Amino acid sequence: MPHQDASLPHVVIIGGGFGGLFAARALRGAPVRITLIDRQNHHLFQPLLYQVATAVLSPGDIASPIRWILRGQPNVRVLLAEVTDIDPTGRTVTLEGRETLAYDQLIVAAGATHSYFGHEAWAAHAPGLKTLDDALELRRRVLLAFERAERETDPGRQRQWLTFAIVGGGPTGVELAGSLIEIARQTLRREFRMIDPESARVLLIEAGPSILASFPESLRERGRRSLRRLGVEVWERAAVTDIGDGFVQVGADPIPVETVIWAAGVAASPLGRALGVPLDRAGRVVVAPDLSIPGHPEVFVIGDLAHCPQPSGTPLPGVAQVAMQGATWTAANIRRRLAGQPTTPFRYRDLGNMATIGRASAVADLGWARFSGFPAWLAWLFIHLVWLVGFRSKVSVLLQWATSYVTFQRSVRLITGPPPAPPPLRH
Amino acid sequence: MPHQDASLPHVVIIGGGFGGLFAARALRGAPVRITLIDRQNHHLFQPLLYQVATAVLSPGDIASPIRWILRGQPNVRVLLAEVTDIDPTGRTVTLEGRETLAYDQLIVAAGATHSYFGHEAWAAHAPGLKTLDDALELRRRVLLAFERAERETDPGRQRQWLTFAIVGGGPTGVELAGSLIEIARQTLRREFRMIDPESARVLLIEAGPSILASFPESLRERGRRSLRRLGVEVWERAAVTDIGDGFVQVGADPIPVETVIWAAGVAASPLGRALGVPLDRAGRVVVAPDLSIPGHPEVFVIGDLAHCPQPSGTPLPGVAQVAMQGATWTAANIRRRLAGQPTTPFRYRDLGNMATIGRASAVADLGWARFSGFPAWLAWLFIHLVWLVGFRSKVSVLLQWATSYVTFQRSVRLITGPPPAPPPLRH
Repeated sequence: MPHQDASLPHVVIIGGGFGGLFAARALRGAPVRITLIDRQNHHLFQPLLYQVATAVLSPGDIASPIRWILRGQPNVRVLLAEVTDIDPTGRTVTLEGRETLAYDQLIVAAGATHSYFGHEAWAAHAPGLKTLDDALELRRRVLLAFERAERETDPGRQRQWLTFAIVGGGPTGVELAGSLIEIARQTLRREFRMIDPESARVLLIEAGPSILASFPESLRERGRRSLRRLGVEVWERAAVTDIGDGFVQVGADPIPVETVIWAAGVAASPLGRALGVPLDRAGRVVVAPDLSIPGHPEVFVIGDLAHCPQPSGTPLPGVAQVAMQGATWTAANIRRRLAGQPTTPFRYRDLGNMATIGRASAVADLGWARFSGFPAWLAWLFIHLVWLVGFRSKVSVLLQWATSYVTFQRSVRLITGPPPAPPPLRH
Repeated sequence: MPHQDASLPHVVIIGGGFGGLFAARALRGAPVRITLIDRQNHHLFQPLLYQVATAVLSPGDIASPIRWILRGQPNVRVLLAEVTDIDPTGRTVTLEGRETLAYDQLIVAAGATHSYFGHEAWAAHAPGLKTLDDALELRRRVLLAFERAERETDPGRQRQWLTFAIVGGGPTGVELAGSLIEIARQTLRREFRMIDPESARVLLIEAGPSILASFPESLRERGRRSLRRLGVEVWERAAVTDIGDGFVQVGADPIPVETVIWAAGVAASPLGRALGVPLDRAGRVVVAPDLSIPGHPEVFVIGDLAHCPQPSGTPLPGVAQVAMQGATWTAANIRRRLAGQPTTPFRYRDLGNMATIGRASAVADLGWARFSGFPAWLAWLFIHLVWLVGFRSKVSVLLQWATSYVTFQRSVRLITGPPPAPPPLRH
């Protein structure tokens, strides 16, 4: 087993997402020893997480063990641990509240989590989608809803089980809505004897004036039309005011619905607070132009946790591209510093923005070109396959996509987890 | 959606395992309406479950939704529900303790669960392997053990994390042991910096005089030798007397070990008791020659729950073949009865017995031929692929086997489930 040279400077990376993983890779061969810490053992390809939640892909298709990905890089040690605190003055991080680890350079790539905008009680009724476990829980709820409807004899309750509400009309909400309506309209057809899955309703509820707000209006309109053609009810300027057991309230109207999915808000990791520097309203760390923090040039913050001020006034979005580019830039800055050179300010190159809508349609905005429909979907497919980490995943994902494309089938319609509670008696 | 003809006789099948599923299929086109009830939504290909536990296959590769498998059979309705009671006099089954369902003919194929031989406290320390959730829990424990060892600084504790004990030397125990030692010796090589996964110990602990007791001695000896060559420590005549936090006690010796897997005993489903007829010591229902129960010719018990007396004195073993053959025989008997003919006594045709040992070795006893090593493994591979239900699974499983065979890699080394508790402080 390869050992690390303890005399080299110690770079600690918090997080094995796109930011942390790409930073570690970009430091390959650098004269440093690296410790990458994550509380999961796997790197997750988050852009495809909604396909696990909607039973298209298996968890193993979009996640790989971090230590496997980095197995050929002897200067990296991977630790499965939760960082609970950071002491920038003492230059240590705390693991699980009791063990400390000293660093020379620190890269914080701890990411973001759901935000219910202060309504934490909604979390139990409307789970979000950030981790593999979230995706498996959503899959479970969606598949169980159809099973419950099949056993229900009251038509009103049956309709309630067959109504799905997605709160938030960003790319994740749009992708979930398109994939969910296809489960009902195509995948489950003819498998039930008491209900007609095709009668299921999928509501996409967006508080703002438009879904896909980060896209130009022409593509938003394409997205809206594609979703409606599939059968999704797109509600815009529709603010959710309450979520509870069996309902979601939009404005003053409670809608009876058993399955609610939260795709509305994210909040930066609480770890940002430990750094003792100014945060923005979303809890992100306001970083210097080279992504370090004020007063501590040896601490860098990248990815969803960083607020990187831009000339436009809008900070960079919380997408994989920003995390990956910030990671390689920071690795280059660390190499410069080791060579006695000054760091350089981060320059982000926007490569575009895309979202799929159902099985074979998408919207794509590459800056120099905007397109939608099948060509955009092909571009999406290609880019996501290329970026998927690990050879087997690519082959397996392509195989599963091909099968589900041709047959409309979902291969992983499994309800796992604790045995479902019996349906509540409401007579 | 297809509706069922309510005027037809109602056949209720409890269980969607090999028994229940094959009974439903064998009643295709029969003038009956069928309700198949299972508490899981999926049929599980149990002979490959150990490959999910050892990160070779994904849950989706060995499980398919029951209603998907039976989608083309309009006389079947599938219900996701737990049967909590049976009333043979009133001819009803009870779902979740409150809803009842009347039947004309009943097939009970409720299977078996683990038995700790009265030591229920062992269950928390030594989980067994019957469901997908069991397999995911085992996978989680095994992978976590290596992660914990990497963080451990005390050499004794490190060894403890790197010791794995499997209790029970039947086919499942043997298959788990072979697959586990390969994770340590091959898969994880070079991925750790503080531990050497190759130093891990796998103990296969059998209380009886020999592992693979259901095989002839020549094949047992082959199995023993193959396991030892892989690095497994095979302990025979070694009775486990206690299992607790961090140890397994064999005879009077406590062995420090963090991961214990239970592959020793099964007990029939408690549902057998509801029938009010004699059970054997393992809780199995003693059935008449045509697999019906005494006094109730309209109730059949098949598979692991049935004790079918044989001329040899030994009842039929709890394997998939027995369940499948009992299922088709019972379906034929039900058709005979509908046609006014008497039922016929079940005749089992033994097709043989096999178990894999590691990546490319197996033992097989087909009655007319006994073989071991690579040819036996090829036979195992072929038979299991042919029987795997669902086309996509076969392709995907073959792909994953091929990859893992060539690369020694395991594609689904994912730790999922609730966030792991921090390692206990024991200094």
